[in-house]
Amino acid sequence: MQGLWLSKGSWAFKPDLLDPVIGLDESLVAVEAAGICGTDLELARGYYDFNGIPGHEFIGRVVSGARVGQRVVADINLGCGRCQRCQAGVHRHCAERVVIGIHQRAGAFAQFLSVPNNNLITVDEDLSDGLAVLAEPVAAALEIIEQMPKPLPSRVLVVGAGRLGLLVAEVLASFDCEVAILVRSPERAAHLQNKRIQVVTSVESESFGWLVDCSGSSSGLATALRAAMPQAILVLKSTLTDAVGVDLSPIMVKELTVLGSRCGPMDKALAWLGAGHLSVPLSVRYSFSAINSALEAAKSPRFFKVLLEPDPC
Amino acid sequence: MQGLWLSKGSWAFKPDLLDPVIGLDESLVAVEAAGICGTDLELARGYYDFNGIPGHEFIGRVVSGARVGQRVVADINLGCGRCQRCQAGVHRHCAERVVIGIHQRAGAFAQFLSVPNNNLITVDEDLSDGLAVLAEPVAAALEIIEQMPKPLPSRVLVVGAGRLGLLVAEVLASFDCEVAILVRSPERAAHLQNKRIQVVTSVESESFGWLVDCSGSSSGLATALRAAMPQAILVLKSTLTDAVGVDLSPIMVKELTVLGSRCGPMDKALAWLGAGHLSVPLSVRYSFSAINSALEAAKSPRFFKVLLEPDPC
Repeated sequence: MQGLWLSKGSWAFKPDLLDPVIGLDESLVAVEAAGICGTDLELARGYYDFNGIPGHEFIGRVVSGARVGQRVVADINLGCGRCQRCQAGVHRHCAERVVIGIHQRAGAFAQFLSVPNNNLITVDEDLSDGLAVLAEPVAAALEIIEQMPKPLPSRVLVVGAGRLGLLVAEVLASFDCEVAILVRSPERAAHLQNKRIQVVTSVESESFGWLVDCSGSSSGLATALRAAMPQAILVLKSTLTDAVGVDLSPIMVKELTVLGSRCGPMDKALAWLGAGHLSVPLSVRYSFSAINSALEAAKSPRFFKVLLEPDPC
Repeated sequence: MQGLWLSKGSWAFKPDLLDPVIGLDESLVAVEAAGICGTDLELARGYYDFNGIPGHEFIGRVVSGARVGQRVVADINLGCGRCQRCQAGVHRHCAERVVIGIHQRAGAFAQFLSVPNNNLITVDEDLSDGLAVLAEPVAAALEIIEQMPKPLPSRVLVVGAGRLGLLVAEVLASFDCEVAILVRSPERAAHLQNKRIQVVTSVESESFGWLVDCSGSSSGLATALRAAMPQAILVLKSTLTDAVGVDLSPIMVKELTVLGSRCGPMDKALAWLGAGHLSVPLSVRYSFSAINSALEAAKSPRFFKVLLEPDPC
């Protein structure tokens, strides 16, 4: 099959990859489209020491296995199924887990991938590819709502206007929250068509009781810690990719609650996407062989989402 | 009056300080004993840019004002009394607050100090000075219990066996928790007589669902993040004093909840101390003029608590 191979940080289009091996209780899925995510760019910089086929945001169709013909996305965390955490339903924290396209398991930047049947989620035929590939990051954004104590505060600050930050802002706005998003690049904010999201370029200290850091940077975290009111809740949604020291004393002095937040409910994400909440303009598509142009587009703020798809055979 | 003056990091005994000015609704308190706390040593290193009379753990007797004759300790946070936070009872987060002996208000390393009447808490005559001065740090330890969701987990790891770490371990053990305390110096752990506290010198990764960091160091925080199981609760009890970068990605990857924790309920602390829970051997006493010997003792792990008292007149 054709697909992309990431090895030691360099991307290559391969026309002759081996087809995936289908395990017990697994299905073969033909990829229709796969999104490039910030994590993919991180993998290329050495995160998780990943070598192989990346890609974890995708929409495809089952071509062999129990659900042949179904249009599907997948829960990307694959637990061992036997340990206490898997038995308790938190397989995303299984110590032995592998993660599709991220950690020790081939991903969706290829013509086919294999997925355990239990991880497949059926998608309505009328949900566009561009929306369906957002199921994973939208689920991650919805997880914030799952974790927050209720009732939700009425105002929230989202720090960072990368793709995840924009999606988080959209998701939170759909829960009747007043959302402010802190941006550095006005170009990025131009994607936002949602009138309920206020774009700001600076924030006062101690001005928000609920904050979500999607910046992935030490300076973004420092800004969030400064902007937090005493006893505020700060959700950490993105992994820091720089190791610069951040003064963490505001956590203690202001008695903040910091919530680490990762994957979320895919079924709710599909329902949310189907309900037409998303205002951002959608995706640009490249074929696998045009990976270099696709990566350039993914690094630019001009496009909200960059999709990859198999080259025509 | 006599007392200690801290200026640009150096301590001096002064026999002729000006007596405190007593404001409206304040009382004059004669200091009987005051404890040296880690924060005092930090103040000497430049924390809060403090110049003046330090000291915030004390026991004294009211000599003028409404409660003359009462033996008292004090809530050290003084809010403005007018803002929304003060009105809501969280004066410790008042933006205009001063803090006795720490921030813009003279403390207890002197013969007398002035304290707002609302901040005074009466102490039983039969509670020893050595126990009464621990009201503030014991209250800080009890705050952990106030903040934790109930029911409490059955096991907890305390990281750091400084004075605060030891007190925290004692307090948590009194709530029927299995407490492990991570120590570097076996000498320090020798203070612990409580059979319900297990002293450990290393911990496995992902081994605790509840952790309290009392280390005050980046390496302690890194150890706590490593030892945390997925979805664990990590209470940050001490301010980091070094600015070395810590890899915070476990907060997100393991979906940890990090709770900043500061001051606590003084009345409950006095009740706890009065109930005889504390197993650690108590204090060594120095007069103000022997500050250099007292500081040396405070830096050594040999003594659990170093008290200062006025020189005999």
